[in-house]
Amino acid sequence: MFEHRLRDDAALIEACLEARLGGWGSLPVVEGMRYATRGGKALRGHLVLETARLHDVSSERAVLAAAAIEAVHAYSLVHDDLPCMDDDDLRRGQPTVHVRWDEATAVLVGDALQSLAFELLSDPACHPDPAVRLDLVASLARAAGGQGMVLGQAQDIAAESADEPLGLEAITALQANKTGALIVWSAEAGARLGGAESGPLRRYAQALGLAFQIADDILDVEGDAAAAGKRLQKDAAAGKATFVSLLGLEEAKARAAALVNEAMAALAGYGARAEGLREAARFVVARRT
Amino acid sequence: MFEHRLRDDAALIEACLEARLGGWGSLPVVEGMRYATRGGKALRGHLVLETARLHDVSSERAVLAAAAIEAVHAYSLVHDDLPCMDDDDLRRGQPTVHVRWDEATAVLVGDALQSLAFELLSDPACHPDPAVRLDLVASLARAAGGQGMVLGQAQDIAAESADEPLGLEAITALQANKTGALIVWSAEAGARLGGAESGPLRRYAQALGLAFQIADDILDVEGDAAAAGKRLQKDAAAGKATFVSLLGLEEAKARAAALVNEAMAALAGYGARAEGLREAARFVVARRT
Repeated sequence: MFEHRLRDDAALIEACLEARLGGWGSLPVVEGMRYATRGGKALRGHLVLETARLHDVSSERAVLAAAAIEAVHAYSLVHDDLPCMDDDDLRRGQPTVHVRWDEATAVLVGDALQSLAFELLSDPACHPDPAVRLDLVASLARAAGGQGMVLGQAQDIAAESADEPLGLEAITALQANKTGALIVWSAEAGARLGGAESGPLRRYAQALGLAFQIADDILDVEGDAAAAGKRLQKDAAAGKATFVSLLGLEEAKARAAALVNEAMAALAGYGARAEGLREAARFVVARRT
Repeated sequence: MFEHRLRDDAALIEACLEARLGGWGSLPVVEGMRYATRGGKALRGHLVLETARLHDVSSERAVLAAAAIEAVHAYSLVHDDLPCMDDDDLRRGQPTVHVRWDEATAVLVGDALQSLAFELLSDPACHPDPAVRLDLVASLARAAGGQGMVLGQAQDIAAESADEPLGLEAITALQANKTGALIVWSAEAGARLGGAESGPLRRYAQALGLAFQIADDILDVEGDAAAAGKRLQKDAAAGKATFVSLLGLEEAKARAAALVNEAMAALAGYGARAEGLREAARFVVARRT
């Protein structure tokens, strides 16, 4: 069952991060790094491990790249939850890092998690060929940085003070940066590790990433805050344009379903071996959290 | 003259960063990245370029590593100046990023500058051998992260709420992380780029880094805020232990001078070619800003 495999991969990734941070002491910043990387779905890390399996790369090796993307994702959540950003108190059903400790610690936890990602990718255990590790570093730096995820965050902030809400094209571009870039990196990572062409996985992940975001907007309206473990209906309260506000609930659901089909189609060449990735695509729109 | 060469190197580094960010648009986060990397002394970047020259590595190549360390240094200042950290309004004689824009932008500017550093180091223009670029990435990730600079920041924060002020040993260890790690990385970078043994440069930089911090503590007491372009006497106001509070002003000056001699001694094997690095060591304790 997909949820079990997702949970197994999350446990593998958490163990990798635990081992890495094991000798780092117990200052709040290190405790915060451990705390912020625990308890998530680890969907991005799962995509790394699943696309690695598709290319016969062992999980023992791929788990470092999976841990790296989860470290970056966790850093982005810790900073995004700060009072000066989204000001969220709850994440994965637990107090956010700045609530559990303080804002200064949350800033530092995020900063150190970003460094940790690049430390993990440059570890020889990640791949024996330095050129492959460097390819992972270079692509993650681009995906996470000021032309990738951070640009998406900045576009999101700019939209809040804009005179009118974003249109469909602008919000699609924003989301491709804000959430899409890391999801694409995750799905391509297995191909990079396996020395294979990553084009089909990129197309899969681009469709998946957008479906994921539309599903997030639907959950924000329809979801159960207790199950989600975070505050919901924030976007409506903030008057922000979302795929639901732009398309309506039914059309948003139809769009997400069409994107899942698009993601499936991109996997055609992999045959039955890509069944796990197909399940991931179905999961992304069916999830309740 | 040393100050001229420092200024020339700073201009080279700023041009490299300008070129890199040229096509990135004009959202506040990108403007903030440009703003935060301008107008500094670029001492760390200078150490990269100077140790590269010592190993016959062209500045055209080494400037990418120099720009990377200045990007990390700038990110650390932007986050350190945040209201939840040191709450500083002035940096390099200009309003800090969160004052000029806002806190959310300052968080994102720092985040994107860290990513940019790893993007620069993984660029083939930095060095043709992927293994060398990867060595720079791995060592910078360690130097900047939760066992390096960020650990030093966290130790600094922990000291503020400790029952008694830090002793000399603890503050020396703290500073070796907080400011020493990046200075050591900078001085070693030239040897890494040149494929040479970096031991002597590491010893040089360890002494230099500590001398730099003692000089900073002396400047905090004796300096001119207008010339420094930042708020001074913060440490005394906060009741924090510094090298001056622990050693007294005269002993602190003697200790800094002894460390400069130690740094010089580490360079003995390089002969006359290391004169620039000797001047850098003298500059670090003689500077007024």
